[in-house]
Amino acid sequence: MSSKMLSAKCRIEVICVGSELLYDRINTDVNILARILAERGLFISRCIIVGDDKKEIVDAVRSSLGRSEIIFVTGGLGPTSDDITKESIAELAGKKLFFSEEVWTKILKRFHDRNMRTIPEINRKQAYVIEGSDIMGNDAGTAPGFVVKKGKKKIVILPGPPVELMPMAERYAGTLRVRDKAGKLRIHRFGIAGISESAVEETVNPFLESFDTKYTILAHPQMIELLVTFGPGMKKIRETEEFFKQKFGDGYLGLDPPSLPEVIGNLLRDRKWKIAIAESCTGGLAGKLLTDIPGSSEFFSGSFVVYSNLLKKRVLKIPRSVLRKHGAVSEQTALYMAKGARKTGKADVSLSITGIAGPAGGSPEKPVGLVYIGVGMPKNKFYVYRFLFPGNRERIRERAVYQGFIQIRRHIIDEK
Amino acid sequence: MSSKMLSAKCRIEVICVGSELLYDRINTDVNILARILAERGLFISRCIIVGDDKKEIVDAVRSSLGRSEIIFVTGGLGPTSDDITKESIAELAGKKLFFSEEVWTKILKRFHDRNMRTIPEINRKQAYVIEGSDIMGNDAGTAPGFVVKKGKKKIVILPGPPVELMPMAERYAGTLRVRDKAGKLRIHRFGIAGISESAVEETVNPFLESFDTKYTILAHPQMIELLVTFGPGMKKIRETEEFFKQKFGDGYLGLDPPSLPEVIGNLLRDRKWKIAIAESCTGGLAGKLLTDIPGSSEFFSGSFVVYSNLLKKRVLKIPRSVLRKHGAVSEQTALYMAKGARKTGKADVSLSITGIAGPAGGSPEKPVGLVYIGVGMPKNKFYVYRFLFPGNRERIRERAVYQGFIQIRRHIIDEK
Repeated sequence: MSSKMLSAKCRIEVICVGSELLYDRINTDVNILARILAERGLFISRCIIVGDDKKEIVDAVRSSLGRSEIIFVTGGLGPTSDDITKESIAELAGKKLFFSEEVWTKILKRFHDRNMRTIPEINRKQAYVIEGSDIMGNDAGTAPGFVVKKGKKKIVILPGPPVELMPMAERYAGTLRVRDKAGKLRIHRFGIAGISESAVEETVNPFLESFDTKYTILAHPQMIELLVTFGPGMKKIRETEEFFKQKFGDGYLGLDPPSLPEVIGNLLRDRKWKIAIAESCTGGLAGKLLTDIPGSSEFFSGSFVVYSNLLKKRVLKIPRSVLRKHGAVSEQTALYMAKGARKTGKADVSLSITGIAGPAGGSPEKPVGLVYIGVGMPKNKFYVYRFLFPGNRERIRERAVYQGFIQIRRHIIDEK
Repeated sequence: MSSKMLSAKCRIEVICVGSELLYDRINTDVNILARILAERGLFISRCIIVGDDKKEIVDAVRSSLGRSEIIFVTGGLGPTSDDITKESIAELAGKKLFFSEEVWTKILKRFHDRNMRTIPEINRKQAYVIEGSDIMGNDAGTAPGFVVKKGKKKIVILPGPPVELMPMAERYAGTLRVRDKAGKLRIHRFGIAGISESAVEETVNPFLESFDTKYTILAHPQMIELLVTFGPGMKKIRETEEFFKQKFGDGYLGLDPPSLPEVIGNLLRDRKWKIAIAESCTGGLAGKLLTDIPGSSEFFSGSFVVYSNLLKKRVLKIPRSVLRKHGAVSEQTALYMAKGARKTGKADVSLSITGIAGPAGGSPEKPVGLVYIGVGMPKNKFYVYRFLFPGNRERIRERAVYQGFIQIRRHIIDEK
């Protein structure tokens, strides 16, 4: 593929094809493309989702061609009869499809490499290519991609599954070079934890307004993310970082911060510490998130998901009297859970979470959303915090875990 | 709001507003609306995602109005300066915005109910309403919704956060009544587990083709979902169910099946059994998924996330010699984990998962993706299964857990 200098004002649209995307499949293709393009200072102006319907596909691509220079089309390249992206765009561009022996050989090889002896006849369909297009190989699947030229505009057709789309989109983006300075505009991500979205906005707004820059605040359960667009050079970025450090202290997570579990993993690794967790209402989510990180065995000892009182007693040695007197959701139980996790898990630090995630099980004294978080630190120091989280079961559980991570992060940083 | 009879051919489009949706925020609004509309036999023909940009919003809504009868617009109703959906649509419809004391009173009440004494000045913006529109109350947030009429067409403006969108969309959909028979077309979901997508397609295709119906196959890690569109009446549905039962046996999960964790929860509840889990590579995900279910304490005892060998020995009493001779990822360790979980967890049944999720840690004998799954049943019966899963760390972990659920489901069903 030839490399071409692009104006940063080059407008890009994305069309995602798939009836399931208009029903219950969640579309992430646009986000994948957005991240890859943002690396080169390019942004997506619009995304259109259409079903597996030739008229809809053709109409959407035609309207995008009227507005934009590059149209990415993802999905609908599979072998089944409802996959018609290739056929639709060939028709729009007035091109024919022909059978490519070269592509078919690659598909056959892929099946052989996987010890699959019988190749489904329907996969032959994927060996048909659009005449006059650049064909892009697919190392992670059987559907090739295509770059179809239409005048000065380009239609870039890529498979929908993220694992196939990602490397192919990276490769294609590698051929795009941005010409003018404006193209060097980049989105920078700043992370802030443990401070409310509105408090962040009120602090940040007057400061960033003075820079005359665009920003977006995203509130995730684990952190507030600020996306700020800056031109080339580091000066404004450094000033912003200084300001955030001064205003938010420990709550400032940095530029392009890793996820909160990764932050904790890094802090623990640096200290050669291990963590053990005792979870009740979160059911394993805290452990799951920490072990999302490759190599987490370096710092993660394990998690005791003690959902029943029986297990709380048996595994974490929480005295029967404590459970009887204060209940499973109490400051005292959270404390004993943190102690038990640290001891039984032979860990340096521990985190415990016990609460009422609902929808049932609440009472006037202990409402749904009540969560106690315990933190265990070296030298047998233990801390317990009480929270009342809004939202449904899912949100309460998520907030409980991330609030736990925020608390333990703070304690690890503060520990001299 | 007046109820109106709608033709099922009524075309619906969705426009989602938010620059973050064209960057790294994943859009689920379209899926939420799709599910709610499908309940009434209505389908979304197109979804357009645009940034917080007046020109883009106006242009997208105008083009949708040219094609469709109902346009849902979600997002961009927040209090911050980049939220301009209301302003853009008022401009397009030639309407003014005016300050509503009634809406403002509701916003104030919401803040007071939450013991928030200072109301951010920026929230006043949310009390501005579009003249001549129907205003929809929002019980889960501060932004009201609007129904704006433009000739015979309707623009339905709703907040973007799912927790606000969902009840408001439900309420609005409740006012729509479908007029003609075609409107009774419904999507039916059939679930199949433990059988490959292509095997399902090959079996299902000739059968459903004979019905002259539309279908979509969705492959989730937990099950294959078949979405089939049928008209009124139960005959075809019953025939399809019979066919699936005969072809897929235990693998057929039923019509509109609950999630696999729910299926297991129901099976356990019916038998008054409890399950305990021992997880290694999945880090707590199995427990997390089972405890997503409200009331899971009825059947879930707990999970032992024994990431380190130390915990495998200490908590689950796996003999040191087994770990030394066979390693943590082995048939023998999976067996002892299932035994230990059942015993320590005082449970009727148990599930154990140990494997190499990668990306590091693989070897020629034990490659990344190798997973052993153990099942413990009443009367001390234990079973171990070996799998080699493709994909990255995330996929391998997900597949391991769902394969574990599939195995334990089968054993519970088969147990006399």
